[in-house]
Amino acid sequence: MRAQSSSAQQDVPAWMKAPGASLRGYGERSPYEKIERLASSVPGTTGSGSSRTPLEHLEGIITPSSLHFERHHSGVPDIPPDAHRLLIHGLVDRPLIFDLASLSRYPLVSRIHFIECSGNSGGLYAAAPAQQSAGALHGLLSCSEWTGVPLGTLLQEAGVLPAARWLVAEGGDAAAMSRSIPLDKALDDALIAIYQNGERLRPENGYPMRLLLPGWEGNTSVKWLRRIKVTDAPVMTKDETSKYTDLALDGIARQFTFPMGVKSIITSPSGGLTMQGPGLYQISGLAWSGAGRIRRVDVSADGGATWAPAALSAPVLSKALTRFRMAWQWSGAPAVLMSRAVDETGAVQPPRKAVVEGRSPAYRYHYNGIQSWGVTAAGEVSNVYA
Amino acid sequence: MRAQSSSAQQDVPAWMKAPGASLRGYGERSPYEKIERLASSVPGTTGSGSSRTPLEHLEGIITPSSLHFERHHSGVPDIPPDAHRLLIHGLVDRPLIFDLASLSRYPLVSRIHFIECSGNSGGLYAAAPAQQSAGALHGLLSCSEWTGVPLGTLLQEAGVLPAARWLVAEGGDAAAMSRSIPLDKALDDALIAIYQNGERLRPENGYPMRLLLPGWEGNTSVKWLRRIKVTDAPVMTKDETSKYTDLALDGIARQFTFPMGVKSIITSPSGGLTMQGPGLYQISGLAWSGAGRIRRVDVSADGGATWAPAALSAPVLSKALTRFRMAWQWSGAPAVLMSRAVDETGAVQPPRKAVVEGRSPAYRYHYNGIQSWGVTAAGEVSNVYA
Repeated sequence: MRAQSSSAQQDVPAWMKAPGASLRGYGERSPYEKIERLASSVPGTTGSGSSRTPLEHLEGIITPSSLHFERHHSGVPDIPPDAHRLLIHGLVDRPLIFDLASLSRYPLVSRIHFIECSGNSGGLYAAAPAQQSAGALHGLLSCSEWTGVPLGTLLQEAGVLPAARWLVAEGGDAAAMSRSIPLDKALDDALIAIYQNGERLRPENGYPMRLLLPGWEGNTSVKWLRRIKVTDAPVMTKDETSKYTDLALDGIARQFTFPMGVKSIITSPSGGLTMQGPGLYQISGLAWSGAGRIRRVDVSADGGATWAPAALSAPVLSKALTRFRMAWQWSGAPAVLMSRAVDETGAVQPPRKAVVEGRSPAYRYHYNGIQSWGVTAAGEVSNVYA
Repeated sequence: MRAQSSSAQQDVPAWMKAPGASLRGYGERSPYEKIERLASSVPGTTGSGSSRTPLEHLEGIITPSSLHFERHHSGVPDIPPDAHRLLIHGLVDRPLIFDLASLSRYPLVSRIHFIECSGNSGGLYAAAPAQQSAGALHGLLSCSEWTGVPLGTLLQEAGVLPAARWLVAEGGDAAAMSRSIPLDKALDDALIAIYQNGERLRPENGYPMRLLLPGWEGNTSVKWLRRIKVTDAPVMTKDETSKYTDLALDGIARQFTFPMGVKSIITSPSGGLTMQGPGLYQISGLAWSGAGRIRRVDVSADGGATWAPAALSAPVLSKALTRFRMAWQWSGAPAVLMSRAVDETGAVQPPRKAVVEGRSPAYRYHYNGIQSWGVTAAGEVSNVYA
């Protein structure tokens, strides 16, 4: 704003009149900052359910570890790191057991990757648009710098036998959450992650170690990883038969639809927020793809009639969130904002209608349709099906 | 290790026998993780001094915000964000005042940048090598994803007058910490940062807003920024005359030596740690330059007699930390580990001797010499001058 008088600012505020707070060993956020994950538990439980990253309050691509989304099937186990072991066995020459100290001596790699729950955005399958924020609708999505040991290194040491095709990864939670993973992925870019955003993993993210399968549905990145059994076929765990299957209209369910599709959402403005009058705004959002890098994000302010490319903020990394931004002069007239991502394979984010058609009403996973935010003349922003 | 019996691992540990902890709104690290910043206050104060990032315990390039180094001149002010104002005045057409809400509507940019205190590694000027860890010696260094408004955008709106050459940036702490900044830098890549690693700035890092001058000595990235006055010359604040000047042997002190030099350190192994016997290790470290990207890091295990290039972990970004790694087969014989960075301008990190020569014994800033870690046959790692 124009300064009415610069002398007012030169008055000394109260917090400059006495020395401030001391140095701290481990910092915390400002007490004025109250943003939290949006948690919802399965009725009758406290630790089974999910909490969502409040995407509409964040910027950049790194999710603060304290706000990384959660999805637990039986709560967060309290694991003393020195007591934890990872067993690799099954179709291998030499079964191996690792503790955190021995694993930490292996060659490490660091990579920035998103994790998205395959149930993310499932609310968009509903017949009527839920009135929620970007985070409440799409916040089973976070992005961290992960550091760990390539799983291929450990499998090579164990000596994978010729009959091996799959492995089963088992978590050390009370659900013993387990998923079957094709061996090809394990030998490609899978990590045993032991650091998240510089420090050791957070408890909610698998402390002291987790599997990380870049670009694949989050559930397969098994947390609190305690066992990898190399097998010749998927073992059909409860977690991949009762859940995480995709039901078509003909009653056939597809299994093992692992990669997450190309997708984007505008996080600002977001449903639930109100624009502060006509004028210049910045549209800001996130794009990602389980297939690699984002090539382009187009933005529309007229419900898809016209589109223009947004600026992508460097670095644009494979299987990582990419921040896009575009200036928008809002006239004050009703508008519908949309974003549409294209990845390096040429895959284009589909309209909602194209995603929903052909899927059973019971289908809950892998929603990657275009999100539309309606803006009223009063500036109210809401989820609309455009 | 070789599994003696895989059945032992298939015993069910205690933490798998009952549901785990609940979902949380804002997460915390594991109670088993105790790593802290290493704080040292000026005698008689609690908030004046510094705390160092424990680099030897971290991996990747992102520093967790809770472990970002601190350097305060009068403690951390408690600033209600809605009460904070930033004034831009002096040699401008239109003085402007911004609050956090108005600033948040401007076009934002996100970039990953290091901040290094110009006094970092000052202990290496000592005649005898201090026996400390990588973090205690070099931990006035951290790296975050910063999001903010380009300062040039705000200066353009204020209308910089033709006589303008410098500006003075004033912090809202009790020290009113202030530095003179050349206008060219302000118009180049300076940001008013309002987000750090996705969420709002931490109090120790200038909440609710700070100046960020990528690649320049950390002190110039003024925290709790409340005022920018555009001037025709540097104003010679107390903070740039009593400190942050570089004394040569002839008694002449240089002022305004802003960019941080090309530099690297091995963080693992680190002084104070003990190697667990001969065998295969991973050397891991950090490299950075105030002039741009890191081009190469060479590592020596024989005190500089021979060198080999380390692997640089992507992304390698301008004025950001770059993680380098190299496998090292330790025979068990005494060794001296060194790393030497080269940046994209071709600048090469100098040996310690070259840095120290020609500088007064009272010189305390801008140390960027090669760090040598001595390894004894017993595996003890210590700071040595090689």
